[in-house]
This record gives sequence, structure tokens and C-alpha cells, in this order.
Amino acid sequence: MKPIIAVNYKAYYPYSFGEHALKIARSAVKVHDEYDVNVILAPPYIELYRVLKEVEGSGVEVYGQHADPIKPGAATGFIPLEGLKEVGAGGVIINHSEHRLKLADINWLIKHAKELGIKTLVCADVPETGAAIAVLKPDIVAVEPPELIGTGIPVSKAKPEVITKSVELIRRVNKEVVILTGAGISKGDDVYKAIELGTLGVLVASAIVKAPDPLSVMKDMAEKAVEAAEKLGI
Amino acid sequence: MKPIIAVNYKAYYPYSFGEHALKIARSAVKVHDEYDVNVILAPPYIELYRVLKEVEGSGVEVYGQHADPIKPGAATGFIPLEGLKEVGAGGVIINHSEHRLKLADINWLIKHAKELGIKTLVCADVPETGAAIAVLKPDIVAVEPPELIGTGIPVSKAKPEVITKSVELIRRVNKEVVILTGAGISKGDDVYKAIELGTLGVLVASAIVKAPDPLSVMKDMAEKAVEAAEKLGI
Amino acid sequence: MKPIIAVNYKAYYPYSFGEHALKIARSAVKVHDEYDVNVILAPPYIELYRVLKEVEGSGVEVYGQHADPIKPGAATGFIPLEGLKEVGAGGVIINHSEHRLKLADINWLIKHAKELGIKTLVCADVPETGAAIAVLKPDIVAVEPPELIGTGIPVSKAKPEVITKSVELIRRVNKEVVILTGAGISKGDDVYKAIELGTLGVLVASAIVKAPDPLSVMKDMAEKAVEAAEKLGI
Amino acid sequence: MKPIIAVNYKAYYPYSFGEHALKIARSAVKVHDEYDVNVILAPPYIELYRVLKEVEGSGVEVYGQHADPIKPGAATGFIPLEGLKEVGAGGVIINHSEHRLKLADINWLIKHAKELGIKTLVCADVPETGAAIAVLKPDIVAVEPPELIGTGIPVSKAKPEVITKSVELIRRVNKEVVILTGAGISKGDDVYKAIELGTLGVLVASAIVKAPDPLSVMKDMAEKAVEAAEKLGI
Repeated sequence: MKPIIAVNYKAYYPYSFGEHALKIARSAVKVHDEYDVNVILAPPYIELYRVLKEVEGSGVEVYGQHADPIKPGAATGFIPLEGLKEVGAGGVIINHSEHRLKLADINWLIKHAKELGIKTLVCADVPETGAAIAVLKPDIVAVEPPELIGTGIPVSKAKPEVITKSVELIRRVNKEVVILTGAGISKGDDVYKAIELGTLGVLVASAIVKAPDPLSVMKDMAEKAVEAAEKLGI
Repeated sequence: MKPIIAVNYKAYYPYSFGEHALKIARSAVKVHDEYDVNVILAPPYIELYRVLKEVEGSGVEVYGQHADPIKPGAATGFIPLEGLKEVGAGGVIINHSEHRLKLADINWLIKHAKELGIKTLVCADVPETGAAIAVLKPDIVAVEPPELIGTGIPVSKAKPEVITKSVELIRRVNKEVVILTGAGISKGDDVYKAIELGTLGVLVASAIVKAPDPLSVMKDMAEKAVEAAEKLGI
Repeated sequence: MKPIIAVNYKAYYPYSFGEHALKIARSAVKVHDEYDVNVILAPPYIELYRVLKEVEGSGVEVYGQHADPIKPGAATGFIPLEGLKEVGAGGVIINHSEHRLKLADINWLIKHAKELGIKTLVCADVPETGAAIAVLKPDIVAVEPPELIGTGIPVSKAKPEVITKSVELIRRVNKEVVILTGAGISKGDDVYKAIELGTLGVLVASAIVKAPDPLSVMKDMAEKAVEAAEKLGI
Repeated sequence: MKPIIAVNYKAYYPYSFGEHALKIARSAVKVHDEYDVNVILAPPYIELYRVLKEVEGSGVEVYGQHADPIKPGAATGFIPLEGLKEVGAGGVIINHSEHRLKLADINWLIKHAKELGIKTLVCADVPETGAAIAVLKPDIVAVEPPELIGTGIPVSKAKPEVITKSVELIRRVNKEVVILTGAGISKGDDVYKAIELGTLGVLVASAIVKAPDPLSVMKDMAEKAVEAAEKLGI
């Protein structure tokens, strides 16, 4: 399996929108071409179309940043999973700590996404909720302690036990789900550490999105990811 | 002042997305060219970019369907007003009955949109809340009794007193705000009636969005809108 | 009209619960007996019954701290207005800044409370929302800038213009509604100032609820309230 | 282990309030005295105190109907777990289908309740979410398909496979948690079946709360519960 670098654009201004959003997308294509990694991009909904066009045919995956548990229809201001699929998104982040969902809705979304052939990357705040989510069989679980998000203090260094405990609890209930490390990831070394602790990669936001040169940050992360994967024989 | 036909795409599938979303946009351009009306389109966020490109330079306005009271930054899955502006939206619907907001947030959004130069179309369920909203000075108030939304039973026929009372209560507190009629509007006659009852036009959804031929529905509405406006000397 | 001292118990621990909750109630009875003021107590739901028993027959009014827009029935964990009435509450606070409501729900609650004969005290964050609420005709509007709540910095001193502007905007749309000043009120002088600025009294929380001797704080407030009311001929 | 009959009063009017609330409490005491079952009562917050007084010393347990993930303090209209403990509640229902919670909040509440010595009864809509909750180690999981709640069609008859699958999935991840059956339970036979399918009892609402004679319904349920428990050697 290839290591994963998942980029959550969030809603930084102007970084997550317009030309910079596309610059990140072009960087992702280059990194994906050059390194043996999978890259996932989650731009804001209003940039989803342009980012999808930018990476078309490259192998870079594009996810929605969030989904609400609604069906297509009279649902003003909401985006149903069917809409995401229609524009070409391959997956969706759900339950990010900035946009948490009710448990029943997480379950419904995972099931419904599976029916539509859309992948789910579900966020958890602590190892226990990571395991609870893993019971629901999403494609990916990302464990992100909210207190480290956006701090630049990588969870893999500040709280490595959160990662190892997450891996342990999640594996007890689900052997297949992909596990990612999130929160505070800012450079290649953090990615290396995340993989060394037993996860398949990282969920990153500001370190890439707000970087003047997203490409160099992504390259650094991809390089270390490949290095870790080779060392550990993943 | 020109009558207004505002089209809320909602999240109908497949109508609100992909090719049909663009077909509606092209129809809007034609109607805007042909009739003396203003047309507002509110596509789903993920179609905002394409619809904007489709109507570029035509005079048709494009609004977001909803806004949450957030500032740009770490706000996964949310779209700040700054993002809407960046992609080129001229306005935003807020407080639709399918996506209601807290009073304090409606106020914050109206103020913040004004600072950014984005127009606000705020929905109300009954005349009293229409007046409460009018106190907050949005650009447009649309009164839509939720029990008629999507029924095809036009509020202008089923409950004309809702419209006249709305106009009365709103005008007591705000002389300038534009008032629209919503809920159940399905054909030109409903638009005529809405204008006759004292509003400047309509907020429509399924009657246009789910129509096999959106152009003919929009033409019928625009024609009657112009007729009513002329008769009433608006 | 008598000045009003409204006490929001909030959910301080242990102050808002158990014996201290009853001590505040007994203090309120004494203050009500001794001074020409109205006293409103809003204890937590789980102390509503005991506080009601404690003040029975005294003239002190007891309000619920919040209401959700639900009807009696299958609504686990919610308290309908009918339930509040059944236990004997005379009113309810709605839309407190710590428990905001959607605009349509505020309107529904005000109307429904009126039908049941329950008074409504509705909170606003800024003068504009205070006026929007006043349009909906509650019994009382309390304007409380959230940034001053719990600070001990009285809005009447820090931002007197918030109070005067609130009174001005509210009176434009509603001549009868009672207006209260909230946020940071901590002693008699703040109450005096609140009345001098044109409101009928205050909404207080921690200054009374967390006081070792709530009676002396309430007496100080009541004394100054009466003084201000006499001076202004209210 | 004794079978459990847990009664969710919900917010029926007038049944869940006033004299009828106490009648249910007195019935519970009688049933608890007469049969070898545990009885849990979850009255509305505003009746918690009186119900607690009514069952004092009887062995009947009293739970809150809901908890929000808040800490004591400035939290108008919310009840922190500390408040529930202060008035004497022994536990709390969380995540009922009529009052669902975010996953991270369910986890926080279970942990925090454990620290305070309060028991948690957590509701799930389907077997999968029941298992996800079981990972978080509450005291009790109640599986209640929302589509059957309040119908009088017992899940144990209409969808016995929901119960057996719940037991299977929950036991894979948690050997100790108590499992209850909910939704549509209306008489003794439903309780018997619920126990036969592998759970320790039931979560009931309208069948008891709205009954003219709650005592006879509870007796019927308790009798069958004891019968099932004896037959199965629980």
C-alpha cells in the first residue's frame, strides 16, 4: 500500500480559494507523479469543480470537505453525496473536529457513500472514538486531537501515544481500515514519524495550504513518507 | 425597479447538478436578455463556479444558497462569505426554511455581507419574522410559508393575506428593503399575483429547477412579471 | 412600573444547585418584601420545583432558563412550555447568548407562550437584534453584549451607548415591551445606571448567584433600583 | 443479574408531569418491591426532584433524560452532569433518537459520568451504532430503531434480527455492557421476547407513561421479565 498525504484545504482566505487553490492542486499532481504516494485533496465546495478539472487524469483524488446526512431534494444550502459524485469527487471527509456529526449520521453517511461508490475519510478526536468509528467500516479513519490542530506541534511528536493507542484500539475492531495521523503535521519528519507509529500517512491542512510554496512542503512530506514506507516494508 | 425572479436550485438530483444546472443558467440568460426583469440564480455550492462562468457578463446574478456565520480560517466544510466573493458570487440566500439560522447569526451575516459588498436575500416563514428581519436591513426579504414550499400551491393564491400582511409589517419598519414572495410559485399567474400583492417578485425552486424545459417556465414567469410591473407602474 | 431584578442562575456548581439555590430564593423573597421591585428567578430546570415551593405566595416570579420549540410528546430530554406551566413557572428566558435560538423558533415560542399565559424574556446581543425581537412582541427584551457577560464590567459603564441605542431602536418598533440591561452587572450602581439609561432593570447572573451572601448584593441592587426609579419618576 | 425495566417519561402532556409523574414513580416502587427486577425512571428535568423524593430509599433508580456535553458554569438552560448528581440522579440517558449527540460528545459524557459516579444508558438506532457505542464503554446500550418508536409495534417482534444482530456486534467489542431492547415495547410478552433474544430488558415510554394504569402495565412487564430471566438462567 502506498502512503497517503491528504490535504484539507479548510477555508483559509485567500489560500483555500481561487488561484492558490489551483496551485496546490498542480503541486499535488507533480508530487503524485514523482513519488510513490497517494494524494488526496479536499478543497472547499465552491472550488471542487476547478480543482477536479486541474487534476483530471492524474491519479490525485479529490474529496468533499464535509457531508451532511441529507438526501437529494429540497435541501437548500446542503450538498448530498449524490451531488459530490455527480461533479466527480471520489470521496468525502466526515466528522472533522471543526464540523462534527451525530453518531447515527456518521453511520448513515458511511453506508450511503459505500452504496454510491464514494470513499469516506472519517475524523476522530481520540483513540476511543477512532475505534468507535472503525466499527462502522469507513475507508479511512484519521485521528486528530483537536487541541493540536493548527498549532504546528505534530501529534506524532507531542502525543505519540495517541497514535499508538489509536492504532491498537482500531485494529482490535477493524483490521482493514486505513489509519491516518492528523493535527499539527508540518513537515516531512512528522510524516515519517506518523508512519513509523503505525499509520499509513497524514491529514494536513495549514502547513501545505498556507505555505507560499506548497510544492516544496508536499515534496518534503512525500519523500519522507516513501522513506518510512520502504524502511517499514509497507 | 425591475421585477425579480430568484431561482433556488436547492439540491434536486440530478436537476440541480451537472448539465441541467447549466441549462437553467442558459435559460436565465435568455430570459434576462429578452424581458425587463432581474434574474437571480442560487445553484448548489459545488456548481457555483460553472454557473458563474455560464452567465458571465449577462447581468444574471448568482447567489450562494446559504452562509454560515464563520470567518475564513480553520472551518472545514464551511464557506465563508469571503470565499463566495472570491469566486464571484454577488449575493447569498440566508435563513431559508430548510436551513434556518440563529437570529444573532442572521444579523452578523447581513452586516458582514454588507462590508464585503455581497447582497443578502433573507427568508422568513411568517409576516412577523419578515418584519424582524427587515429591521436588520438586508437587501431582500423573501416570505415563504414553509407549509407551502414544494407543494405547487402558490402562497399568492392559498394565503394572499400572508403576503399583504408581510408587506404591511415589513414596510412599518423598513421602507427600502425589496420584498419577494415564495412558496408554491409555479407559473406566470402566481408571479403576477405576487407582484399585485405588493412584492417585487418571487423566489422559485422546483417549478423551474425540475422542469423538463426550464426556459418556457421562466419565460412565462418573466412575461407576467413585466405585465404586472407595467400595470402597477413599478 | 416597578424596576426589575432578574436573576439567571445559569449552571454554576455548586451555587446554582441544592441548598445555595434555595438560599438565593429566600433572599429574593426578602428583597421583594422589603423593596418596591419585581424579582424574577431563573433556576436550572432540575431546581425549578424546589425554588417554586420556596417562593410560593411571595410575589417573586420564577422563570425557566430556556425553552426549545417543541410540542409536548415524544421529545426526550426537552421541556415543552406546557411542562413549565404545569409545575408553576410564570415565564421563560429565551435566546440567551449561551443558548441561542433560530429566529423562527423565537417567534413560535413567544406566540405559544402567550397562548399559555407564560411570560417571555428574550435576550439580544446587540441593539439591532433587540429591535428585531421587539417586533415579535415578547414581554421583556434583555440586551446583553456577550463579550461582557461574566466579566464584572457592567455594560452600563463600558458601553452605555449599547443601552441607549437599544432603547432607541426598540422603541421605534415597540412602545410597550419592557427592556432590561444585562452583562457585567455586579452592583447597585450598575443597576442605577441601567435604569438611568432608559431600561426598567437588569438581568444578573454570577454577581448574585456566586456571591457568598446573595442577600446583600440583591439588597444593594434593589435599593439603587428604587432610588433610580424614584428619581426618574418611573 | 436482574432484568431491567427502564421508563423514559419523555415529555407527554400531562402524563409526564405533575401528579401522573408521581403515580408512575409510586408504581415503580411497588413493582420493584414485588418483583426481582431493576427499575429505572427517567422523568423530565423539571420533575426530577419530586420523582427522586417519591422513590427515595426504594431501590428504584432515577436517571436524567439527556445530558449535553457542558461543564458547570455559564451555561444558561443546560444541566451539567454535576447538577444531576447534586440532586441525586444515579444515571443519565444519552443519545436518545429524539435528542441525538455528536460522537465526540457521547464519548466525553460517558467518561465524565464515570468520573462522577453516574451511570450512562446510551441509545443506538441500529446494531452498528450500538457496537460503536459499546466501544466507548457505557454502562448500558439500548438499541431502538427510530422507525418503531411510539408505534406499539415491538422491535422484538417486528425486527427480532435487529436485536440479535445488536447483541452479536456489541458482544464482539464489549463483553460486559448491559444491553436493552427499545422501540414499540408495549406489554409483558414484548419484554419476554427481548430477554429471550439476548438483552437484559427494555427501554419503554408511552406504553407505561400514557397508560391510565401504569402499575398494571409495569407489573405485566416485570412478571414476564422475571419469567424469562428464570427460564434462561440469567
